[in-house]
Amino acid sequence: MNKITEELLKIVSDWKGIPDAAYNIREDTGCAGRRSTENIRIDSKTDKPGIDIRVKPGTRGEMVYIPACVTHSAVDDLVYNDFYIGAGADVTIVAGCGVHSDGEEEAKHNGIHRFFLEKGARVLYLEKHIGTGGGAGARVINPVTDAELAEDAYMEMNTTQIGGVDSTLRKTTAVLGKNARMVVKEKLLTEGVQTAESDFVITLAGEGSGAHLISRSVAKQRSSQLFRSRLIGEAACSGHSECDAIIMDDGVVSAIPELTAHNVDAALIHEAAIGKIAGEQITKLMTLGLTEKQAEEKIIEGFLK
Amino acid sequence: MNKITEELLKIVSDWKGIPDAAYNIREDTGCAGRRSTENIRIDSKTDKPGIDIRVKPGTRGEMVYIPACVTHSAVDDLVYNDFYIGAGADVTIVAGCGVHSDGEEEAKHNGIHRFFLEKGARVLYLEKHIGTGGGAGARVINPVTDAELAEDAYMEMNTTQIGGVDSTLRKTTAVLGKNARMVVKEKLLTEGVQTAESDFVITLAGEGSGAHLISRSVAKQRSSQLFRSRLIGEAACSGHSECDAIIMDDGVVSAIPELTAHNVDAALIHEAAIGKIAGEQITKLMTLGLTEKQAEEKIIEGFLK
Repeated sequence: MNKITEELLKIVSDWKGIPDAAYNIREDTGCAGRRSTENIRIDSKTDKPGIDIRVKPGTRGEMVYIPACVTHSAVDDLVYNDFYIGAGADVTIVAGCGVHSDGEEEAKHNGIHRFFLEKGARVLYLEKHIGTGGGAGARVINPVTDAELAEDAYMEMNTTQIGGVDSTLRKTTAVLGKNARMVVKEKLLTEGVQTAESDFVITLAGEGSGAHLISRSVAKQRSSQLFRSRLIGEAACSGHSECDAIIMDDGVVSAIPELTAHNVDAALIHEAAIGKIAGEQITKLMTLGLTEKQAEEKIIEGFLK
Repeated sequence: MNKITEELLKIVSDWKGIPDAAYNIREDTGCAGRRSTENIRIDSKTDKPGIDIRVKPGTRGEMVYIPACVTHSAVDDLVYNDFYIGAGADVTIVAGCGVHSDGEEEAKHNGIHRFFLEKGARVLYLEKHIGTGGGAGARVINPVTDAELAEDAYMEMNTTQIGGVDSTLRKTTAVLGKNARMVVKEKLLTEGVQTAESDFVITLAGEGSGAHLISRSVAKQRSSQLFRSRLIGEAACSGHSECDAIIMDDGVVSAIPELTAHNVDAALIHEAAIGKIAGEQITKLMTLGLTEKQAEEKIIEGFLK
């Protein structure tokens, strides 16, 4: 594993050396390390780039690390990772991605993740994205996440784009079975002329299924963001989507949430708010001794925490 | 004016005989009566079907009636009405539309309305739509409304589709100048296999402009509705959009509100909720002696009031 990968891993996966857990490190389209455990098997795919992660039914409290790094320009990484989570398993998946550009050409990672959660399976999915390096080439991360949740399954996705990613297109779909639940917490920060688009389609197919989608975003300088979400209620279900965005400078944010109820017992709610930081919040922090700039940073930090 | 027009006018314009005000009655693509007043002039267009309504600057407290009726099948009415509201005027425009189908073919009204509000002008625009008659031909009303509000202008649109309209496609756009304000209150009821689509694009172009959009809808039986709204903030402005929908039986409602802030001082908020009537509301009314059906009707009536 090269030095840049090591640095990126610290940021995106809280990497403190080889963990006592299953892991697979992807580095510039190759594999820089892998371990399976008794309950979690990681295998290379034979038909295309990527891995299959199989978690045995009933596995509890284990973690899987699958970070991916692009460490120089002129890399266009494409990977297909499939997660099979056995019935009743309860695991945490840490899936950060860092792209480092040092030259004129793009450094790009496209990760296509599919999740299959069997009955009663629970997954906490943590994902941090960052771009680094001084090259003029753009740092691009385009993640696709498709999840199928069987009866009583639960999935929580916490995704964070910290900074330095010039362009991102995030696509997430999920289909929820009976009493399945999904929680998504997305945090996005863009600055400079960065662009970010995030697109969710969550289908509440099973009776008693529920989704809770919270997006918080900050668009600084001349950056722009587009947030789209679709909650589709096909059964007696509940869906809630919430998008809060702070704009600064010449930042642009669009929010297009969509609710569709196909069933009389579907209850769907959406809220969205876009605006700048409230003046009184800044004033309050300034009376405590902070400069205006520091006050803004403090508020943004709290908002995205 | 024929009997059906008379009946339709009572419903859509609270018609109690020729009013003491400016009016134009459109009946089956023709004109069934018109009056201009000293301050409000109504003229036929010379290049296409429709009228120009010119309200003198400073006109206050006057009303204009411009109902349109289609009284039989196989009519496809298309009309262009332009409203020029002089500076400082304050008028009420009553613009109902009724379509009556008695045969196999469609009865259709397409009204394309443009509003030009000069500085400080105020308009209250009331519009009721209804379909009647026992014919198999569909009753269709497709209104297009485009409004330009100059500095300090104010426009309130109250639109109601009461029932019997098989298909409607409503398109409303508005561009608001400095300190201009727009309030839209839309009420839509669909039943059977009716479809309704309502599409708003409100551009908050001027500093201090504001828009407040409230949509309430009920989709019964197998009817379906699509609500789209776009609030675009291009200056220091405030926009609020709210969509509440009740679904019953196999009704389907989609809500797609969009917020876009192009200016750091734009504050945009959206809320949407789709669901059925709360069970406890029905139970409460039933304890007061109403049947379940009556209780539902009472709640719907209150919701759309």
